[in-house]
Amino acid sequence: MSLVIVGSVAYDGVETPHGKAERILGGAATYISLASSYFTSVKVVAVVGDDFAAEDAALLASHNIDLAGLERVAGGKTFYWAGVYSADMNDRTTLRTDLNVFADFDPKLPEAYRSSPYLVLGNIQPALQRSVRAQMNGLKLVGGDTMNYWIKDYRDELLATIREWDFLLINDSEACQLSGERNLRAAAAKILDMGPRTLVIKRGEYGAVLFRREGGKLRHFMAPGYLLENVFDPTGAGDCFAGGFIGYLAGRGVGMAAGDLDFAELRRAVIYGSVMGSFCCEQFGVDRFRSLRREEIETRYQEFQTCTVF
Amino acid sequence: MSLVIVGSVAYDGVETPHGKAERILGGAATYISLASSYFTSVKVVAVVGDDFAAEDAALLASHNIDLAGLERVAGGKTFYWAGVYSADMNDRTTLRTDLNVFADFDPKLPEAYRSSPYLVLGNIQPALQRSVRAQMNGLKLVGGDTMNYWIKDYRDELLATIREWDFLLINDSEACQLSGERNLRAAAAKILDMGPRTLVIKRGEYGAVLFRREGGKLRHFMAPGYLLENVFDPTGAGDCFAGGFIGYLAGRGVGMAAGDLDFAELRRAVIYGSVMGSFCCEQFGVDRFRSLRREEIETRYQEFQTCTVF
Repeated sequence: MSLVIVGSVAYDGVETPHGKAERILGGAATYISLASSYFTSVKVVAVVGDDFAAEDAALLASHNIDLAGLERVAGGKTFYWAGVYSADMNDRTTLRTDLNVFADFDPKLPEAYRSSPYLVLGNIQPALQRSVRAQMNGLKLVGGDTMNYWIKDYRDELLATIREWDFLLINDSEACQLSGERNLRAAAAKILDMGPRTLVIKRGEYGAVLFRREGGKLRHFMAPGYLLENVFDPTGAGDCFAGGFIGYLAGRGVGMAAGDLDFAELRRAVIYGSVMGSFCCEQFGVDRFRSLRREEIETRYQEFQTCTVF
Repeated sequence: MSLVIVGSVAYDGVETPHGKAERILGGAATYISLASSYFTSVKVVAVVGDDFAAEDAALLASHNIDLAGLERVAGGKTFYWAGVYSADMNDRTTLRTDLNVFADFDPKLPEAYRSSPYLVLGNIQPALQRSVRAQMNGLKLVGGDTMNYWIKDYRDELLATIREWDFLLINDSEACQLSGERNLRAAAAKILDMGPRTLVIKRGEYGAVLFRREGGKLRHFMAPGYLLENVFDPTGAGDCFAGGFIGYLAGRGVGMAAGDLDFAELRRAVIYGSVMGSFCCEQFGVDRFRSLRREEIETRYQEFQTCTVF
């Protein structure tokens, strides 16, 4: 079942304790698309400048990602972000953000995209996320990501946007900021009242927690973070989590049955999200997806089972 | 099967965002004993002053904890520690440490303790931990805890001590300090070469990871941290983890068979450790153990299963 992905396609400058790259393919939509492409057919909506390299488009195309919705602005430059990670890689400092053509991004969905049953909205302005949702018809499942900036300065717009979502994926500090609660359970309870029936709180290297309310009771599922031998570059890991999560659900055709989602499928989706996030960190930028094979994904999924079952 | 526990019995002054207590029962041996007493018969070895209150001894005795090894120093005062927690409770600042009678603690085991099959050594000077181990005969399983101070300033003594242990329980920053490695897998591999065949790395609210080497391969098991609705006071949670872990193993009579431990039992022990650590945080000091019943422990164990299985 096809999945529409909206977000940034960018060039990144990344420095980690393991090395440095001046200009490599990045952006939320890029990472989400690559990760989900292992599970389902993907259609991307984004904007780039005419500096967007043929080899980068070719990488996406080689994963059968539909680029009909990738707008190219003549004479414009692709969004550029640069950042440097701390020694333990738990913090990063943004060195540069050149929005370039992304500043005027106004996503228009190709006709062929509009009836896709799955939609995931990467971290962009909430009003744009909302306008994309309005262009779709016959959605089975919709959700997305956001960030501290929109939570703080675009709160009303954001609340109106996520009210229409089935799931929200955010990290723990954003969950606290959005809810005004310090405790994760309390934060989740408040956020589930804002619209989304499913909430995934990402905790970086410590994994993720899935929250649902069923019959008035808060239920949750906890996935550990995969213990990597070496974290080369965490850029994009959260987006790859989103890609694995929604990609798995789309590939399985999971949708709201009787107004609800199957909890067992959601748990598996969280593990596939964790698996894809872990692969992302193993090499610089998107490099791991140049070689990653589906069998490796299944092997790592089994590893998650082996190291959590008791 | 009886379990000997060595460590501090103390009075604590504790301040958390939820309240303040000037002088409450504390100490590693206290917490380990209370937590493990739900699983097996416990014998404590510690020292207190003549200010040690009858009601505190009575609490321990009410959990069938053998106090024959609790030395009382006439004219002496019990170890006193005071600290204050940060708003998010992930940090604490020590305000006062009065070693008092603990400064001259030289544990002598009562004759009736020496043939106990299980021994856990709370965080005290490594040479003392070693001398206690030497007083035991017929041990099935021995292990313990340590801390940054001993790792930094008593390294050789510590290495000689843990070389004789079956298991070591430490937190993540201590594991990195002991091994000189930043990565948890790499740290675990190095520590498993130092003697203990089983290593548990505690990660506070994020749970714990059990490491073993089997046939030259590193295996691990990850337990999530229980999502508490309210963390009242984390003091003693790590010690309660140790108590649940070793208490479960002792209660089941688990020991080195063919030079090794059963991995499935160790996984369950880690979950029981997590369960006991989570209860500890629910009230101030040891208060939760005044009311905690065995059935509640089993219920929470089941909750861990429900929220991790996929």
